[in-house]
Amino acid sequence: MSTKPASDTPRFDPNFTQHVIDSMGPNTSPRMRQVMASLTKHIHDFAREVELTTDEWMEGVQLLNWAGQMSDDKRNEGQLLCDVIGLESLVDEITFKKASEATTLATRTAILGPFFRTDHPIREKGATISFNTPDDAEIVYMHGRVLDAVTKTPLPNASIDVWEASTNGLYEQQDDNQVDSNLRGKFIADANGEYAFYCIKPTPYPVPDDGPAGKLLKLLDRHPYRPAHIHLNVILAGFNPMVTQIFDKDSKYLDNDSVFAVQDSLLVEFVPRSGDEKAKLELKYDVYLAPSE
Amino acid sequence: MSTKPASDTPRFDPNFTQHVIDSMGPNTSPRMRQVMASLTKHIHDFAREVELTTDEWMEGVQLLNWAGQMSDDKRNEGQLLCDVIGLESLVDEITFKKASEATTLATRTAILGPFFRTDHPIREKGATISFNTPDDAEIVYMHGRVLDAVTKTPLPNASIDVWEASTNGLYEQQDDNQVDSNLRGKFIADANGEYAFYCIKPTPYPVPDDGPAGKLLKLLDRHPYRPAHIHLNVILAGFNPMVTQIFDKDSKYLDNDSVFAVQDSLLVEFVPRSGDEKAKLELKYDVYLAPSE
Repeated sequence: MSTKPASDTPRFDPNFTQHVIDSMGPNTSPRMRQVMASLTKHIHDFAREVELTTDEWMEGVQLLNWAGQMSDDKRNEGQLLCDVIGLESLVDEITFKKASEATTLATRTAILGPFFRTDHPIREKGATISFNTPDDAEIVYMHGRVLDAVTKTPLPNASIDVWEASTNGLYEQQDDNQVDSNLRGKFIADANGEYAFYCIKPTPYPVPDDGPAGKLLKLLDRHPYRPAHIHLNVILAGFNPMVTQIFDKDSKYLDNDSVFAVQDSLLVEFVPRSGDEKAKLELKYDVYLAPSE
Repeated sequence: MSTKPASDTPRFDPNFTQHVIDSMGPNTSPRMRQVMASLTKHIHDFAREVELTTDEWMEGVQLLNWAGQMSDDKRNEGQLLCDVIGLESLVDEITFKKASEATTLATRTAILGPFFRTDHPIREKGATISFNTPDDAEIVYMHGRVLDAVTKTPLPNASIDVWEASTNGLYEQQDDNQVDSNLRGKFIADANGEYAFYCIKPTPYPVPDDGPAGKLLKLLDRHPYRPAHIHLNVILAGFNPMVTQIFDKDSKYLDNDSVFAVQDSLLVEFVPRSGDEKAKLELKYDVYLAPSE
């Protein structure tokens, strides 16, 4: 991207970056030293490559400060900023790759996203998570098993956190018209490793665009939409935790997710369900957990 | 810094970064496209190079959010985070280089720093900026001229903002024991381009270490100290604004400034002053402004 021709004479102080890296003291941990040396080098290379000016840098600082100021226990705008430049999906790929090299391939992971909550209420198998079902929502019976990725045997007692946005595109913590923990729940797999619940068929929605991430998307002439998806976070002692999203294979925005989280292996199909007054659609989804090292 | 041997087979999706860059729409400005393409590439390269994990990334997000939450109209912690990895000094070098290529060499610039205020009170030529002079402070008579960097002629009417920390290492907005705008002032160069005021001899101090920048410095096993310096911001219509810091040539920490702002051309010498009851020291400093394009 450099606008300047290559030259043998460096345009800027060629020793500056190494000087900053060398300022780290002897008691820095080896990993911290590795991470910060690489981060410093790449951030400096970026600034030199585009010849970033003081004014442009200060605009970036204001954007980052704004992200922190908008963040609280229900919203993580710093995370969302990373998401719209693909960073959370990239570190997810890296983390999954490292885990899968150490163990047998488990369910592909996807990003946690900024709407996770750690305090989901535990619900009974077969219960619903939809307490303010909008008129335009389609109810889905979602069920499946949690299995050992190596032995393929069912795993009882795994906890399955699920969360999804309503059809207006809002998670309950963004929406005063939804009761607390609407479209959220924690389920415990039964003795056969089975879980089941009623939810709504997910619909595409925009990420919040009233903050710095929204401003960045506008500056990049990008739309804020995410394809329809359901979040899952499956945890069982002795296995790697599995954070993923599953995507409706017929959704819009699969090819241009605003946070770049779609993987082919995470596409699912909602099929018609008969004989159930509560739901016209069904989704069967098995989760494979990799034993931890 | 990569811990992995080079290989012809990419370890991670080789198309991901370009996919994110290509998501920018046609209405992105050319400069925004250039900056964000480079930033995305370098941030992704950094993550792949160190194989950044989801947990490590999330620690970084929390650090950034914390910076925004600590920032207000008197404190800019996002800026300080950039400062301790040398980014503000680097963009200052870039900005100065670009300006000096277009015009005649002016006074070397240095970073604005996070303690600037835009609302300095205007003070008379020869006034003091020290209203809570501590017992261990030495008073300095600082004076000089503002000159055109091309013609070397004096420039009347330039505004000279000056600010410095007290001997306890605190700027007035950090310290309840200093009156508002202590050790700050805005002076207007007279008909001969001359300015003058009394201040205190600056002393080394640590940058605030109770926030994310301080945490980062500790993790990097680095001290938070800055060498003794006085901030100047000189503005005159028709000339490039000149933000700089001047450093006591005998100060500690000149070789390891925690924010990497020292330049040889910015070292100054405080000399004894006789015949002035108000000050035992004197500093003469001329400022050269480059005509704007």
